[in-house]
Amino acid sequence: MDLQTIRVELQASPYPVIIGSAALLSLGDQIRGLGFKAGTKVLLVTNAVVEAHYGASALQSLSEACLDASTLVIEAGEDQKTPATVGLIHDAAFARRLERGSLIVALGGGVVGDMAGFAAATWLRGIAVVQVPTTLLAMVDAAIGGKTGVNHPGGKNLIGAFHQPRLVLIDPSSLATLPEREFRAGMAEVIKYGVIGDPELLAELEASGPQLASLNTLSAELLQRILVRSAAAKAKVVAADEHEGGLRAILNYGHTLGHVVETLCGYGTYLHGEAVGLGMLAAGEISLAMGLWSASDQARQRTVIAAAGLPLAWPALNPDAVLACLQGDKKVREGQVRFVLPTGIGRVEIRSDVSEATIRSALASCA
Amino acid sequence: MDLQTIRVELQASPYPVIIGSAALLSLGDQIRGLGFKAGTKVLLVTNAVVEAHYGASALQSLSEACLDASTLVIEAGEDQKTPATVGLIHDAAFARRLERGSLIVALGGGVVGDMAGFAAATWLRGIAVVQVPTTLLAMVDAAIGGKTGVNHPGGKNLIGAFHQPRLVLIDPSSLATLPEREFRAGMAEVIKYGVIGDPELLAELEASGPQLASLNTLSAELLQRILVRSAAAKAKVVAADEHEGGLRAILNYGHTLGHVVETLCGYGTYLHGEAVGLGMLAAGEISLAMGLWSASDQARQRTVIAAAGLPLAWPALNPDAVLACLQGDKKVREGQVRFVLPTGIGRVEIRSDVSEATIRSALASCA
Repeated sequence: MDLQTIRVELQASPYPVIIGSAALLSLGDQIRGLGFKAGTKVLLVTNAVVEAHYGASALQSLSEACLDASTLVIEAGEDQKTPATVGLIHDAAFARRLERGSLIVALGGGVVGDMAGFAAATWLRGIAVVQVPTTLLAMVDAAIGGKTGVNHPGGKNLIGAFHQPRLVLIDPSSLATLPEREFRAGMAEVIKYGVIGDPELLAELEASGPQLASLNTLSAELLQRILVRSAAAKAKVVAADEHEGGLRAILNYGHTLGHVVETLCGYGTYLHGEAVGLGMLAAGEISLAMGLWSASDQARQRTVIAAAGLPLAWPALNPDAVLACLQGDKKVREGQVRFVLPTGIGRVEIRSDVSEATIRSALASCA
Repeated sequence: MDLQTIRVELQASPYPVIIGSAALLSLGDQIRGLGFKAGTKVLLVTNAVVEAHYGASALQSLSEACLDASTLVIEAGEDQKTPATVGLIHDAAFARRLERGSLIVALGGGVVGDMAGFAAATWLRGIAVVQVPTTLLAMVDAAIGGKTGVNHPGGKNLIGAFHQPRLVLIDPSSLATLPEREFRAGMAEVIKYGVIGDPELLAELEASGPQLASLNTLSAELLQRILVRSAAAKAKVVAADEHEGGLRAILNYGHTLGHVVETLCGYGTYLHGEAVGLGMLAAGEISLAMGLWSASDQARQRTVIAAAGLPLAWPALNPDAVLACLQGDKKVREGQVRFVLPTGIGRVEIRSDVSEATIRSALASCA
């Protein structure tokens, strides 16, 4: 299959998202195509599992393109997503004598991408990074848009920076080794793009039905279309609002309440995408209660989330704890919790006038 | 004395540098003038010495302007300029529940400014920072331009980010409590601006003679002119090259060899400005050896450095160690050491064709 390119049209630093089977084999050439010269130092940051599957291919592609590459394997669970792990990447950057013209390549899922991106953002006040996501979640969301960061004991992603990659390279064949549950979780973000802005994508997901739930049942053509369409949706929002000053907040659809689920259940109980799916269902219930969208729209959203094999029932959480947790969310502005609420398939609004009673009743509906 | 304003004309984020006696008392009002609303949370980051002298005034000004301010005192020696100390600022940001619209104010010297700035750059992917420098060095250099960061065991300022302040507020009266040696060290950066781009400033410094060496002998009018002129020089270079892609490198005049002195003698033996003075003298000797400028220009530079009471004789360093250290400097590009060399009073060039023999002979002349 040919490679397809979506451009993230940022004024200061536009960059391509290249998508297609076997894209990984062209990694080195693509980097050279950006203007990096032969002999440029490249630090390839990955985790042990991804390294075992794709590390050799990536390194070979870099070497064949005459880049001076070496690999750093880090622990990349959510609980290792800390300033200390970023410090290990900095140590490697120093040991390898990375210069301002050098490059970090993040090969892996969202945690690797966030940490390698943040390390690049903060080494020598910012060196280039290329994102090579290997999970569906990272492909359709985290790798595009320049958000990087790590967790603070007080909350997820509180420490970080905006640092746009120079290139995002998405090779769907690397999904072959992804656990099925993680594949399904990634599909939640795809559904999100449909609900917030792409009714055609949502219709296509609906038409696909339960084949959404597994890479084994999804055709290569549909997967490619999903990846391209999701990347285009993300690119459009990011280009319009690089630093999350306004519009970009719509990408947080399902995330405000999703973070609450992750926090209160303990990170790891639900995968991020699973929590986002639950968050979208709850946001839909709030919309319903506020008369912002119809029961049939909420039913359509629910059907697609079900088809993707994602959880539908909220865990039994104390509503008081949920409300307290919402107040601590970093998307709070001036003390008001801001929700991204759907007003139809393909349309959302940002609202900070959701009453406590409405939240409580929506939660009750989700149980 | 009236406040004077220099604007740093960055396209995306222009900001004012406000200079004048008693400026500190207007801190809160100036922040409100930027558009921060009543009730905005402000974390005032400072060190114990500065807090004792100016903390109460700053906090009072913030409170009177209806800002919700509190103070964090950090240890701010060069050896505490680490990711761990930035972590303490992050902890305070979390404890105070800083939001995206909140603000960090850095009140202190370069170390406070670098760390508070870096903490702001990396909290919630970047919140606003206001720089209130209290040392001459920070006033004329570090506080303007958005360079923030901390040290890595491998070298100074290797970890950091570009993060422009929203405002720089310079109150010369806060120099009253600065140790004289630190005042003199700051003057080295002022002399630098004269040599790299402002012959009139250099002439004025020459005319002032030994009164440069102490705040007690320097008139308030001349000090104000020096601060305004230095800020204007820095602002101009920063506006032309925000991320140090080219022109801004001229600000490193005296710094390449200055860093070598700091590294090899151990940080703390020489103050940064003292090392920069030695670095300028050595760079001048290289220029002389390469026929780039005249012996009389070098003599003028030396006379002003002497008038400021700065050291003139290089420490006895092994030339091999100096050369090895230069290779590790982060201003190396593709293996070539780049020097900022004067070609006349007010003019510099960036050269990467300085031979090892020339460096050795220049060092010998400096001893």
